[in-house]
Amino acid sequence: MTLTLYELGGLNDRRYSLFSWRTRMALADRGYAVEYKPVRVSDKAAIAFSKQDKVPILVDGDRVVHDSWRIAQYLEARDGTDSLFGGETAQALTRFVNSWVDRTIVPRLVPLLMIDVLGIVDEEDGRHLRKGIEKAFGKTLEELSANREKDVAALRRLFDPVRASLRSQPFICGSQPAYADYIVFSPLQWARIVAPVDILEPGDALAAWRERMLDLYAGLGRTAPARA
Amino acid sequence: MTLTLYELGGLNDRRYSLFSWRTRMALADRGYAVEYKPVRVSDKAAIAFSKQDKVPILVDGDRVVHDSWRIAQYLEARDGTDSLFGGETAQALTRFVNSWVDRTIVPRLVPLLMIDVLGIVDEEDGRHLRKGIEKAFGKTLEELSANREKDVAALRRLFDPVRASLRSQPFICGSQPAYADYIVFSPLQWARIVAPVDILEPGDALAAWRERMLDLYAGLGRTAPARA
Repeated sequence: MTLTLYELGGLNDRRYSLFSWRTRMALADRGYAVEYKPVRVSDKAAIAFSKQDKVPILVDGDRVVHDSWRIAQYLEARDGTDSLFGGETAQALTRFVNSWVDRTIVPRLVPLLMIDVLGIVDEEDGRHLRKGIEKAFGKTLEELSANREKDVAALRRLFDPVRASLRSQPFICGSQPAYADYIVFSPLQWARIVAPVDILEPGDALAAWRERMLDLYAGLGRTAPARA
Repeated sequence: MTLTLYELGGLNDRRYSLFSWRTRMALADRGYAVEYKPVRVSDKAAIAFSKQDKVPILVDGDRVVHDSWRIAQYLEARDGTDSLFGGETAQALTRFVNSWVDRTIVPRLVPLLMIDVLGIVDEEDGRHLRKGIEKAFGKTLEELSANREKDVAALRRLFDPVRASLRSQPFICGSQPAYADYIVFSPLQWARIVAPVDILEPGDALAAWRERMLDLYAGLGRTAPARA
């Protein structure tokens, strides 16, 4: 059975949706055949069927599931064999990782690089994104990215607990990747796709882990080209 | 077989060692009979047998293990039945929680409240602690706690990812507590023991979780009285 995933698509078919990358990796981990449907971020009509306005949206027969965390839970329940999370306690802990990324990393990364996204989407999508972020943060995209070098350096440091963890194991989930790895990968993959300059430095253990993540599932992550 | 745990002891036998509380909870979780040995923080001779200078130190027959994370791993390997961490992937994820607490929470909490510790240790221990922290941070204890109200408020916000996680489950590890809960509990328990004012506000979901943690194992955490 083929599942369908609705995700953001930009110019040249760039698949830049941060949260959808969690679902993409999860679906590959589970070995599903997936039909990907790109949606322009300003085209709310295309996803009105889901009765909400954000991607990713997973369609599985007559089931429609939105929100990356809810989709992961849905896949876990659907599968019933081995765990996408690595077991029950791991799933509970993965919820913490999800909250940590969404409350610590995403709110600093997204406004900082949103100005770059304007270069990979059409004008209408660009206007839509600018309006949303400028309203949420009360600053222009130009102001939000004004101290870029300093802010990127601070952002890199936020990942220090991940680096510490990776000193003892190849993946955040241990010897093999699992959903918590996909969560942490998602903002870095988003940055890789949208930013003209790599936010990670060469030699960073986090960059080495990102390469391992990009290698997974026949190089699924590399199907989205790096902009840098 | 009784295990022995060396931990910090202050005036009136207060057991205030932040990292030892992780081990205390882990030992209770595993159901071990434990003999606790208080050590004054300035008395390095008392723990010279461990060939290093920090508590907690676990003595198990002729095995001597120091460092809370290493002790947890030791207990996991010793036991071989169910897992202190909640399984292999959960253990890998708990390493991230350990790094997150030690790099995000501890370095902000400990210098801020260290001046309070002076009130629960003798003069020699107080001099020892003051010297160590003032050297590490390049400021006096008075300077480090000068913006206490603002700094405590910022510190509370650092726990937001934990609060988000606890909205869906009673413990960080899910329906039951496991080692990641003990890690996050440890700085809050330390603050509870050393600070004359509770750093958490009434009504905070984190405070409610802390109460659940204090209830565990016949109220082990409550054997150390709150200073507030």
